[in-house]
Amino acid sequence: MIDINKAIESLNWNKEPKGLYEPIAYALASGGKRLRPTMTLIAAETILNGSLLNGNVIEDVLPAALALEVFHNFTLLHDDVMDKAPLRRGRETVHVRWNNNTAILSGDQMLIEAYKLLAQVPNDKVAGVLNLFNEMATGVCEGQQYDVDFEHMSQVSIDDYLMMIEKKTSVLLAYAMRIGGYIAGATPAQQEALYQYGLHIGLAFQIQDDILDVYGDPKTFGKQTGGDICSNKKTILLLTAMETADAESKAELLGWMMATDRDEEKINGVTEIYNRLGVREACETIMEEHTALALAQLDKLPQNSATESLRELAEKLATRKN
Amino acid sequence: MIDINKAIESLNWNKEPKGLYEPIAYALASGGKRLRPTMTLIAAETILNGSLLNGNVIEDVLPAALALEVFHNFTLLHDDVMDKAPLRRGRETVHVRWNNNTAILSGDQMLIEAYKLLAQVPNDKVAGVLNLFNEMATGVCEGQQYDVDFEHMSQVSIDDYLMMIEKKTSVLLAYAMRIGGYIAGATPAQQEALYQYGLHIGLAFQIQDDILDVYGDPKTFGKQTGGDICSNKKTILLLTAMETADAESKAELLGWMMATDRDEEKINGVTEIYNRLGVREACETIMEEHTALALAQLDKLPQNSATESLRELAEKLATRKN
Repeated sequence: MIDINKAIESLNWNKEPKGLYEPIAYALASGGKRLRPTMTLIAAETILNGSLLNGNVIEDVLPAALALEVFHNFTLLHDDVMDKAPLRRGRETVHVRWNNNTAILSGDQMLIEAYKLLAQVPNDKVAGVLNLFNEMATGVCEGQQYDVDFEHMSQVSIDDYLMMIEKKTSVLLAYAMRIGGYIAGATPAQQEALYQYGLHIGLAFQIQDDILDVYGDPKTFGKQTGGDICSNKKTILLLTAMETADAESKAELLGWMMATDRDEEKINGVTEIYNRLGVREACETIMEEHTALALAQLDKLPQNSATESLRELAEKLATRKN
Repeated sequence: MIDINKAIESLNWNKEPKGLYEPIAYALASGGKRLRPTMTLIAAETILNGSLLNGNVIEDVLPAALALEVFHNFTLLHDDVMDKAPLRRGRETVHVRWNNNTAILSGDQMLIEAYKLLAQVPNDKVAGVLNLFNEMATGVCEGQQYDVDFEHMSQVSIDDYLMMIEKKTSVLLAYAMRIGGYIAGATPAQQEALYQYGLHIGLAFQIQDDILDVYGDPKTFGKQTGGDICSNKKTILLLTAMETADAESKAELLGWMMATDRDEEKINGVTEIYNRLGVREACETIMEEHTALALAQLDKLPQNSATESLRELAEKLATRKN
């Protein structure tokens, strides 16, 4: 498998004006899992029965894989401005290290750079890839807007929440898979299977994220748990609790949501309600359903070592501790 | 000629989530000259010898023309956030009417919408148009960054300034022309002529803008003159004055630049120095050179009523009072 980090490093940001390009280089050098471009490449490899490694096809797929990574980091840059987030992957965010205007403008340029990478796929695939990428990008922006909207709404259903995370997070993984398959010549049915795999993986991933924020072991999770509870974030755990609680538990939960100065007590109190209502198990069931749906897609694809990697990825994400 | 405003109105923004799309509808409904899409259509008409009106070609070119207008308005949305501008075309800016985060996110979506429109040009032209559009968009972002950089630099040459406005303003007009021509089947030489026409028109336009901000008649100019002088904006007038002034005039000019609480005196004082140094005439000469360069390009194109419109446009921009 190609080294994604090396491919990202080989993108040249040593250009003028430095004020525009240095923040892009900084943002892209900050690591991360490189999950999206990896998925694009594995999707292509699945379709090509593993012949990607030795063929020229890698050159056809790689620009699109990199475009998805650049796009993902563009969204982080602008999201961090909107959320006033000070840190990202352990380093200062761009708007802190430089300023808001830099994060806005360099972010805009990153989005354009993603489209420049897209334009490098084989000529007869450009129009198709552009359409898929545009649908993806629209979904992500819509998801971000729903996320903002939900913060200010008193009633959000679990279905609303799943729709929101589907757009905000899963659509990017779904199209990462589908675009890789499309360039590799996947049939429409195979493209759909790749898409659905990415979509359900993404949903399972986000649900697991919510669970770990409460039930993760701080040692393996890598950060303090309970952050979502303290900030009253409408996670699938809280929404499940609100939908299943009796009047008394609901009142207790709302009481804790008013508390702003007793973090430790609040985390313990809310977790205790979650435990009593079986929230963790209910959410794990939803997560496992999506993992199963993702795995079921793989039967519709050629069976080879790349398909096996996708199977392992789904299982790893479902049992991850961080 | 097709009614651009009607075509823009026919774009459908009545979509969910409203928080994302309503600001886009608002921004695009605020009028403006629609100069860029008009230029794209005229460029195509020139190449097709006026047959655009009756053909299906309009459907091929229109999406790209609209993409350029949507892109232009995207840049205004983000620029207004960065400049903290309260008004645009007499109405509240998006970040004032909503908030900064909305202006950032809806602006991002507008950029994506521009690419969605691009994807609607004929399939065999998509890759070519995408490349041209990406070059244009990169130029505009680079120009914006140079503009920011120049604010904080003590030494900016006239050449630096012309490079900056070429990127920030002219490149969009240049590619508006070239993309229209490209879709209409222009030869490379014709595309280059269309591009150069747009580039020089843009430079002349921006220089005239700087001149009018000092010498325009407030009655016809539509806004108070002297704003650039008050804010020490590095216009071509100020840069010309700094490059041509003797030590004494230079000291006097720098003195006025320190003054922050005597606007009327400052405007009169600086204008008096400009008059003494012949700054207006020097800048008008540069502007006329660019107008002449724009007009010279038209000789390389088919001669028809559309070419005549381009001739009139260049002459109108050069003698405009607002």
